[in-house]
Amino acid sequence: MPGNRAVIYRGPGHVEVESIDYPTFELKDGPGVNPANVGRQLNHAAILKVVATNICGSDQHMVRGRTTAPEGLALGHEITGEVVETGPGVEFIKVGDLVSVPFNIACGRCRNCKEGKTGVCLNVNPDRPGSAYGYVDMGGWVGGQAEYVLTPYADWNLLKFPDRDRAMAKILDLAMLADIFPTGFHGCVTAGVKPGTSVYVAGAGPVGLAAATSAFLLGASVVIVADLQPERLAQARSFGCETIDVSQGDPAEQIAGLLGEPEVDCAVDAVGFEARGHGADAEAERPATVLNTVMNVTRAGGAVGIPGLYVTGDPGAGDAAAKIGSLSIRLGLGWAKSLSFTTGQCPVMKYNNYLMEAILHDRTPIAKNVNATVIPLDRAPDGYMEFDRGAARKYVIDPHGMLGSATS
Amino acid sequence: MPGNRAVIYRGPGHVEVESIDYPTFELKDGPGVNPANVGRQLNHAAILKVVATNICGSDQHMVRGRTTAPEGLALGHEITGEVVETGPGVEFIKVGDLVSVPFNIACGRCRNCKEGKTGVCLNVNPDRPGSAYGYVDMGGWVGGQAEYVLTPYADWNLLKFPDRDRAMAKILDLAMLADIFPTGFHGCVTAGVKPGTSVYVAGAGPVGLAAATSAFLLGASVVIVADLQPERLAQARSFGCETIDVSQGDPAEQIAGLLGEPEVDCAVDAVGFEARGHGADAEAERPATVLNTVMNVTRAGGAVGIPGLYVTGDPGAGDAAAKIGSLSIRLGLGWAKSLSFTTGQCPVMKYNNYLMEAILHDRTPIAKNVNATVIPLDRAPDGYMEFDRGAARKYVIDPHGMLGSATS
Amino acid sequence: MPGNRAVIYRGPGHVEVESIDYPTFELKDGPGVNPANVGRQLNHAAILKVVATNICGSDQHMVRGRTTAPEGLALGHEITGEVVETGPGVEFIKVGDLVSVPFNIACGRCRNCKEGKTGVCLNVNPDRPGSAYGYVDMGGWVGGQAEYVLTPYADWNLLKFPDRDRAMAKILDLAMLADIFPTGFHGCVTAGVKPGTSVYVAGAGPVGLAAATSAFLLGASVVIVADLQPERLAQARSFGCETIDVSQGDPAEQIAGLLGEPEVDCAVDAVGFEARGHGADAEAERPATVLNTVMNVTRAGGAVGIPGLYVTGDPGAGDAAAKIGSLSIRLGLGWAKSLSFTTGQCPVMKYNNYLMEAILHDRTPIAKNVNATVIPLDRAPDGYMEFDRGAARKYVIDPHGMLGSATS
Amino acid sequence: MPGNRAVIYRGPGHVEVESIDYPTFELKDGPGVNPANVGRQLNHAAILKVVATNICGSDQHMVRGRTTAPEGLALGHEITGEVVETGPGVEFIKVGDLVSVPFNIACGRCRNCKEGKTGVCLNVNPDRPGSAYGYVDMGGWVGGQAEYVLTPYADWNLLKFPDRDRAMAKILDLAMLADIFPTGFHGCVTAGVKPGTSVYVAGAGPVGLAAATSAFLLGASVVIVADLQPERLAQARSFGCETIDVSQGDPAEQIAGLLGEPEVDCAVDAVGFEARGHGADAEAERPATVLNTVMNVTRAGGAVGIPGLYVTGDPGAGDAAAKIGSLSIRLGLGWAKSLSFTTGQCPVMKYNNYLMEAILHDRTPIAKNVNATVIPLDRAPDGYMEFDRGAARKYVIDPHGMLGSATS
Repeated sequence: MPGNRAVIYRGPGHVEVESIDYPTFELKDGPGVNPANVGRQLNHAAILKVVATNICGSDQHMVRGRTTAPEGLALGHEITGEVVETGPGVEFIKVGDLVSVPFNIACGRCRNCKEGKTGVCLNVNPDRPGSAYGYVDMGGWVGGQAEYVLTPYADWNLLKFPDRDRAMAKILDLAMLADIFPTGFHGCVTAGVKPGTSVYVAGAGPVGLAAATSAFLLGASVVIVADLQPERLAQARSFGCETIDVSQGDPAEQIAGLLGEPEVDCAVDAVGFEARGHGADAEAERPATVLNTVMNVTRAGGAVGIPGLYVTGDPGAGDAAAKIGSLSIRLGLGWAKSLSFTTGQCPVMKYNNYLMEAILHDRTPIAKNVNATVIPLDRAPDGYMEFDRGAARKYVIDPHGMLGSATS
Repeated sequence: MPGNRAVIYRGPGHVEVESIDYPTFELKDGPGVNPANVGRQLNHAAILKVVATNICGSDQHMVRGRTTAPEGLALGHEITGEVVETGPGVEFIKVGDLVSVPFNIACGRCRNCKEGKTGVCLNVNPDRPGSAYGYVDMGGWVGGQAEYVLTPYADWNLLKFPDRDRAMAKILDLAMLADIFPTGFHGCVTAGVKPGTSVYVAGAGPVGLAAATSAFLLGASVVIVADLQPERLAQARSFGCETIDVSQGDPAEQIAGLLGEPEVDCAVDAVGFEARGHGADAEAERPATVLNTVMNVTRAGGAVGIPGLYVTGDPGAGDAAAKIGSLSIRLGLGWAKSLSFTTGQCPVMKYNNYLMEAILHDRTPIAKNVNATVIPLDRAPDGYMEFDRGAARKYVIDPHGMLGSATS
Repeated sequence: MPGNRAVIYRGPGHVEVESIDYPTFELKDGPGVNPANVGRQLNHAAILKVVATNICGSDQHMVRGRTTAPEGLALGHEITGEVVETGPGVEFIKVGDLVSVPFNIACGRCRNCKEGKTGVCLNVNPDRPGSAYGYVDMGGWVGGQAEYVLTPYADWNLLKFPDRDRAMAKILDLAMLADIFPTGFHGCVTAGVKPGTSVYVAGAGPVGLAAATSAFLLGASVVIVADLQPERLAQARSFGCETIDVSQGDPAEQIAGLLGEPEVDCAVDAVGFEARGHGADAEAERPATVLNTVMNVTRAGGAVGIPGLYVTGDPGAGDAAAKIGSLSIRLGLGWAKSLSFTTGQCPVMKYNNYLMEAILHDRTPIAKNVNATVIPLDRAPDGYMEFDRGAARKYVIDPHGMLGSATS
Repeated sequence: MPGNRAVIYRGPGHVEVESIDYPTFELKDGPGVNPANVGRQLNHAAILKVVATNICGSDQHMVRGRTTAPEGLALGHEITGEVVETGPGVEFIKVGDLVSVPFNIACGRCRNCKEGKTGVCLNVNPDRPGSAYGYVDMGGWVGGQAEYVLTPYADWNLLKFPDRDRAMAKILDLAMLADIFPTGFHGCVTAGVKPGTSVYVAGAGPVGLAAATSAFLLGASVVIVADLQPERLAQARSFGCETIDVSQGDPAEQIAGLLGEPEVDCAVDAVGFEARGHGADAEAERPATVLNTVMNVTRAGGAVGIPGLYVTGDPGAGDAAAKIGSLSIRLGLGWAKSLSFTTGQCPVMKYNNYLMEAILHDRTPIAKNVNATVIPLDRAPDGYMEFDRGAARKYVIDPHGMLGSATS
C-alpha cells in the first residue's frame, strides 16, 4: 500500500501538505466526519490515484475562516483520477479507468438521485441533503487534494473517459468537469441561456469564466462578465466576452453602453455570499449586492441562475442577519419583473458526459478560458494564497506529475 | 349611450360608487393615467357590459393606503362581461360574446406576448412591463368594477365562453378566471405541483384557496393551507384541505404532525408583502415571514411559487428597507436546499381557456371553494370593508343584476 | 429454503403452474436466458415473497404465440412483494419491506438510468436497451408470476411502501404501480394531458383504463375511451369516461357527437400492434388503425402518447411488412397537424412514488377503475384465458393468499 | 402605385416572371385563393418592398408537379423586406422598417397562436390549420417572390431588424430567418440537440445545412450530414460537418466508422417525402427511407426532429398508399428504442428574433454555410432549374437590386 499526502486545512489562512491514511473501504473517524458516518462500509467505492485536483473558490471560504471547518480537514472536491482498486460491489467501473468525479457525492439509490437531483442526495450526509468531498458539514468524506482518494458509489458517481490517450491529451479541460464547468453551465441553463441570448455573468473567477464559456457553448450572442479585478476581466476578454468593471459604477448603465439597453436576457450569479459592493462601495462586503444587481439587469420575464454559494450560517459576516444567511434582497423588484431564480449545488451528473463530449470534440476550450495552471502537490499552499489574492488562474494540483506536458 | 357607475378609490380606507364616463375608443386623461398613454387610440378594443367583477386582495393594498394610488381611481381588474361594442380593428370577438378578461392587459404584438409572458407586456404601460385594469402605476387603464369597461386588444385579450347558457349556469366559477383561479394555478404550476405531491399553501384568502383548489385539480395528494384566520381555515377544510393555524406555532412542526415529516414537495406563497409573523409574532407585520417559511418547509430540490404580491416600493412599510421592497430573506437556506423560485403576475392567458374547460365540465368547484358571494354594485364599499376584516368570502360585484340566481 | 411455483408458458394458448427453482443471487441458465447473462452475479438483488402479481396484456402477446417466446418461460412482470432476503450489496432496502417492482429492470448505473430513462437501461439486456421480468428477448430475467422472485439492483429498482398497514389496506391499488398505472399515466403525460384538456384513449383494456384514470388525476375535462368490447366500455363509463364503440363507425364523428368538434387535445394509443379495424373492418387485424385514428382525432399542435406495444418483429402478422414491424402510417396527416409522438416502455420509476402517494391519500381508485380481480396462483391459466376473451378485468394473482380480504 | 412582377408557376417544370397586381389591403380572388378568403379585409397588413426572397425546396414540390398547385400561382414564402405602407390597424410596425417575414402566416389572435403554435394558426387558412405565402392549399395568400408583397397581421408577424445598417451588412444571413434557419433549428431543438450531443442530419439541401449550422450553434459535438449529392456533402464539410454518402451503403455502418458506434444522440429528417433509397436503392424514390434510417441510427431514448415535409396527398407518388401520404414505417423499431418524434411546420416566431441576434453578433455564418447565391428576379427560373438539379446553393432573389454587394 502506497503512502498518501494531502492538502490539510490548518486554520484561517493556513493549509499544509501532510501525510494521511491511504483510503480504505470504510469511512473512518477523522476531522469533520459526522458520527453517523463513522464506520460506514463502502464496498461500492473505488480508490483513485488522483491525476488532477483543482483548488476551488468554495475551498477558500473555509480557508479564509468563514466557516466552522475543523483543523485537520483534508480539502478538495474537484477530482480526476485513475481507478486503482474497486470494492466488491463495483460492477461496471474497472481498475485502470480514467474518470471524472462529480464534486457532489450521491448514492444513486434515493428519491432525489432517481430524479437527477444529485446535489441533494439524501443518503450521504447525515446533516442535510447533499454532500461533497473535503468540505465542512458535508458528512466527512475525505478530500481529494491528495495522492489517493476514495469515491463512494463508484458505478453511479464516476464518469469514465472513453479513451485514455484522447483523455490525457485534453486532461486539463476534462479536469474542469468535476465542478466548475458543469457549475457554470448549470448557472447558464437555469438562467435560460440559449442561442441568441444576451447573458450577464457576475464574477470573473473560475466559475464565472466557466459560466461565460458555457454561455458561448449554448449559443449566446453576447456574454458580459462583471468583476472588480482587472486581470480577471482581461481573462474574460481573451475569449470574446464583453466586460464590466463594477468598481467603475452601475452595471446597468455599463450594459446600456454595450447593448443600447440596460438589461440582458439572462443573468448568472457566480459570486455568492462573499460579494462586495459596486462603484464606490466596491471595497466593502455587501452580500446581497450581486443578487440585487442581477435582478436589476435581467429583463422582465427572464431568469437568474445562482450557482454562487450562499450559506445558512456565516460566522464571519458583518452583521447579525448575514451571520444566519439572511440577506436584504429587493425581491419586490424581481417580482415586478416576473423573474425566476434557481439556486443550489449543480447536479454535475446531469451535464458532465455531454460536456466531456464537447471537450473531446474540440468545441470548448474550457481550460484555456479559465487559465488552468498546473502546480505540484507541494505548491498547493502557494496556489491557495495566490488564488485568494485574485490571480486570474484556475490552479490544478498534479499529485503524481502526470500533467507534466499538459497545457491549457 | 348609457351611463356608467364605478367603484372609486377616495383615499385610505375609503371607496365610493360614483358615475364615470362611458368608455370610448380612446384612453383619456384621468386619475393615474400615465401621460404617455393619454390620447391613445384603441380601435382594437371592445366595450363590455360588466356581468361580474370581483374585489381582489391586491385592490386592498391600494385601499389600505399602502400605495401611491391617486384619489379618483376607478378600481377593479377581475372582469367578466358581455361585448356590447367593438372597435373597427376587432375581427374575431363579436358583439354579444360573453367573455372573461385577463387582469393582465397585453398587446399581443410584443416579444413578451409572443412568448406567452402576458404579465410583462412591453406595450401597454409606459412605466414598466406589465399592466392591469384599475391599478396604480399600471398605465392608467380604467378599472372594471363598473357597469361598463373598455378592454384593449380585444381579439388577443378576451376569452370567449363557447356557449352562453352553459356559461351563465357556471358564471360565478367563470368569474374567477379573470385572476385568482389562474393566479393560484400558476403558483401551483411553478411550485411543481403534479399528481401525488404534497403542497403547502401560505394564505387562505381567495388566492390561497384558489391555489389549493388548483393543487387538487393538478392531482396533489395532500394540500395544507396555512393562515391566521379561523374562518378562512375552516373554508379551506370545507373542500378537503389540511390546515395550519400559524398563530399556533411553527408551520414545520405542524406539517410534521400531519405528514410525519416537516417538509412538503411544493410550496406556494399566496400572501405577499403584507405578511404577518408566525406564533407569538402573529400580530406584527413581518414581510419576509412567508418567504422564509416556504423555504423552510419545502423539501430539498423542490420549488416555490410566489403569486403573492411583492412590491418595489411600500411607503407604509415598517422599516426603511421594506419601504423600497427590500426584505431580509434567508436565501442561504434556500440555496442549501437547491430550491427554485418563480415570482410575478400570473400570465392568465396561459391557463384560462383550460381552466374554463375544467369548470364547464364540472371538474373544479372554484366558486364554492372560495365562497364566492354576490353583492350589488352599491354594496361594493361594504364588500371592501368586510373583506378587509378577513371575511372568508370572495366578493363578486353584480352591476347589472345578472347574477341573481347564481350561487357558488 | 421454500419451494417455488410459477406460471410457465407452454406454447401458444397454453400456460401452466409449475415448480421452478427458488431464486438465488446468480442468473442461471434457463428458457430464454441470454447466454451473455448466464452466470451473472446478483449481489445487489433482493428476493421477494410475491404478494401480488398481475396478468398483463403484453403477456398475452406471448401466450397467443405472436412472439418467439420459448416454452418453459416463467411469465410475469407486474410484481408487488415483501423482501425476504437481500444480497450483500443491498444497503437501503431491508428484509420485511413491502415493495413495488417496476416492470423495467434497470441497473441504476448507466447513462440512460442516470437520465431517468429506465425503460432503456443499457446494462441488463445483452440484446438491446431495456428489459423486463419474464419476457421474451429481454435478457432472461425470471418472471414474477410465482411465489418468489429475484429482483436485481434492489436499492435502485424497488419502491418501498412507507407503512405496511396502510399499504396492505390499499394493496390492490398499489399492485398497479408495477406497470399499468405508470404506463397509462406516461401515455397521458406524453400526450400533454393537463387540467382542462380533452383526451381520447384508444383501448379500454387495463392500460387504457389506467390511462383514463390517469387523465382524470391529471385534471382532464373530458376523457373519451374507445374500444370494441361493450363490457370494457361499460367499465370505462363506470368512472365517468365517455365511450366510443369503434365497431359503430368513425371515431372522429363520434367525438364530434360528444364534443361538438371531431378532435381532442390529446390522444393515447393504449392498444398497440394487435389493433383491429374500425367500423365494418372491426373484425380484421389492422395494426396501423389506431395510429392513424389518433392522428386524425388529435387537434393540430397536439401530442400523441403511444404506450401500446409495437414490435420489431411479429411472426404472426398478416403481411410481410407487419412481420418486420413495418406499418402503413399516414404520417403526412400527422405532419400537416404538427403532431408529436412519444413511444416506448414507460420508465416506471419516473412516476411510481408520486402515484403511490396519490393512492395512499385516496385520490385515485385505480384498482376499482380497472376492475382488479384477485385469483389464486393455481387459477392463473383461467385468468389468462378469460382475459384473452376480453373480460373487463385486471387479474391479480395472489400466490400466498395474502390478498384474501382485499377488494378493489 | 408602382408595378409588381413576380415568379409564377406555369405548370410542371415551368415558372415565369410575370406582372401581377400591386398588393391591396384586401385578399382578392386569384389562382389558389380559397373562396372563403376572397374579399377578406386586411387593415392589419403591411405592404413590403421585397429586399430578398429565397427559393425553397418546398417550392420545388409544386414546380415538379407533385401537388395540385394551380397554374398562375405566385410563388415564394421566404421574404425579407422594407415596409412601404401599413394598414390602419397596424400600430407598432412603421413604414421604413426592415423586417423578416415568417413563412407561416398567423393571426396572433387564436388559441394556437397564443400558445406559440404559429405553424397551425386557426384563422388564416379555411382548409386546415396553418398557412404560408404562395403555397398550394394554404388559403391563397399571394407569394413573395415578387417586387412587392402584402403581409397580414403585420404587428404580429413581422420581425423588425433593430438597425438598418447593421441589418443590410448581414442581409443574406438575415434572409434565412424567414424559413430555413428556424426550420433547421426547430428540427434540432425537437431532436434534443444540446451541447455535447452527436447529431445526424438526413439531407444536405438548404434545410439540412441550416439544421447542421443550428446543431453547431446549439453546441453539438459532432454533426453528421447525409446525402447523395457529392457537392452538397462538400458544402457540409466546408463548415466542419462529417458527411455520409448514402449511395455508398448503410448509414449506420458509416456512423460506426466515424464515431465507433452506429448511433447518434439526435437525428433530423431534413428530406421529407421525396426521399430516395440508400445504397443500391439510391436512384429509386423511397418515401419512408429517411424515417426508417433516422429511427435506426438514433440511440434508445433519443428524439427525432422531422422538419422535412410529409404530405397528406401526393398524386405523383409511386404507389397507392403513398398517394394518400401513407408510408410503411418501422414504428416497432422506434417503439423498442423509446423514441419520440416531432413533425410539422416550424413555428418561426418562436426562434427568429433569437437567431437574428446570433447573426447580428457574428455567431453563426448561415448564409455562407448554405451557400446563399444572389440572383436577380429575372433569373428566378434558372435558379429553380439549377436548384432542382441539385446545385449546392441557396438561391436568393434580389428583386430591387438591393443586394448588389452582399455576399455570403
